[in-house]
Amino acid sequence: VQAGDDLATLIADAAPDLRHGDVVVIAQKVVSKAEGRVRALASVEPGTEAIAFADDFGKDPRLVQVVLDESASVLRAERGVLICETHHGFICANAGVDVSNAPGDDVAILLPVDPDESARRIRATLRERAPRSTSFPPSGKDLDLGVVISDSFGRAWRLGLTDVAIGAAGITVIDDWRGRADAHGRELRVTEVAVADELAAAADLARSKDSQQPVVLIRGAARYVTTEDGPGAAALRRPPELDLFR
Amino acid sequence: VQAGDDLATLIADAAPDLRHGDVVVIAQKVVSKAEGRVRALASVEPGTEAIAFADDFGKDPRLVQVVLDESASVLRAERGVLICETHHGFICANAGVDVSNAPGDDVAILLPVDPDESARRIRATLRERAPRSTSFPPSGKDLDLGVVISDSFGRAWRLGLTDVAIGAAGITVIDDWRGRADAHGRELRVTEVAVADELAAAADLARSKDSQQPVVLIRGAARYVTTEDGPGAAALRRPPELDLFR
Repeated sequence: VQAGDDLATLIADAAPDLRHGDVVVIAQKVVSKAEGRVRALASVEPGTEAIAFADDFGKDPRLVQVVLDESASVLRAERGVLICETHHGFICANAGVDVSNAPGDDVAILLPVDPDESARRIRATLRERAPRSTSFPPSGKDLDLGVVISDSFGRAWRLGLTDVAIGAAGITVIDDWRGRADAHGRELRVTEVAVADELAAAADLARSKDSQQPVVLIRGAARYVTTEDGPGAAALRRPPELDLFR
Repeated sequence: VQAGDDLATLIADAAPDLRHGDVVVIAQKVVSKAEGRVRALASVEPGTEAIAFADDFGKDPRLVQVVLDESASVLRAERGVLICETHHGFICANAGVDVSNAPGDDVAILLPVDPDESARRIRATLRERAPRSTSFPPSGKDLDLGVVISDSFGRAWRLGLTDVAIGAAGITVIDDWRGRADAHGRELRVTEVAVADELAAAADLARSKDSQQPVVLIRGAARYVTTEDGPGAAALRRPPELDLFR
């Protein structure tokens, strides 16, 4: 996938059996490539801060500069790790900048500028392209399918990465059970399920890191698919006033 | 499920088609109930600290006392939320203590004392009980299946809960790609996938919070099933020396 490629059409061509109720989970990297969100390190002029950090930790100062350019703030810079808040408001290592699986050694891949907008745009094309199921209700509506754009994030207190949603359209991003009753009729108090993140995690199990399978189709999760695009993965970002650990 | 029930036998009875390569994901709450890890609040005498916190935030001081009893330390106590490190080393809200779906209003459900040991014990029984598949290699071995005990945890910078593994046996808990090559032959540098957490998250999508379905069977993830019990979910706990946010 190269800059300018129509990723949604590539997906529709590759998934002729796409149908009502499906969720399409797309790895961030291929979305970024299609959107031209890459930077050649040869063109990057590292500043003082980037050079200082790179010296301390044995990193490429040009790559550090790209990370800083993608960051609204840096929460931690320790043991060679930069934990950043991106301009979108995601908190993750290296502001989501990655060089693995890049077309060349000297290219950094950035997060999409607006991953929710990317998801909405891809969804619009998939809805046009995919055949409408005649067997699934509601028959009179447009094809309803969900799109998740996923990336691998670390966690503050758990080792290992899990895939989470950085963009979403057409799915219930958070399934809010607050105020609803549990099986004993008691009110559930703090149960908001981050469905979009669980869909991203489930999709990650279906591929391996060297398989070059950027898209996973989830079938059987139709109850999370919505007609409207919805709030997107932006709804998963914890606002600063609810953040206890910044 | 009541204290003393043989949960593994109940699961084996309910899943006669359990087979080689399956992963059985069990909600923590039912494991705790079977192990008698409940406390009647009527028997709890709250101390000064619990009373003070309960007064500040309008909580039941007896429940706060149970949370403190289950905690090795309290990381944050703000806006009615106690973020605790449990005696196991898990960091989560209220030390994993929950009252929803409890058999009565005045009972708190605690995490299992050793969820990895719970997973190993359940796995041992399932291996004995489930018929060995004759069609799946390796034919000469014991039935290899994985067990995950899941609970819903919040995240420092993302809204909503996702299910994670608090106990595990017979699965690859972290799939470590460090040192292996990506699709372009480049060495992958920091890719450790928290497979056990992704399995827990995937299972959560298959049920709803009021469905009283404490067990989900995952089929098709056999490549993560191991012959040995393995390190368990303990391997997912970030050690204090790698913790940037405590």
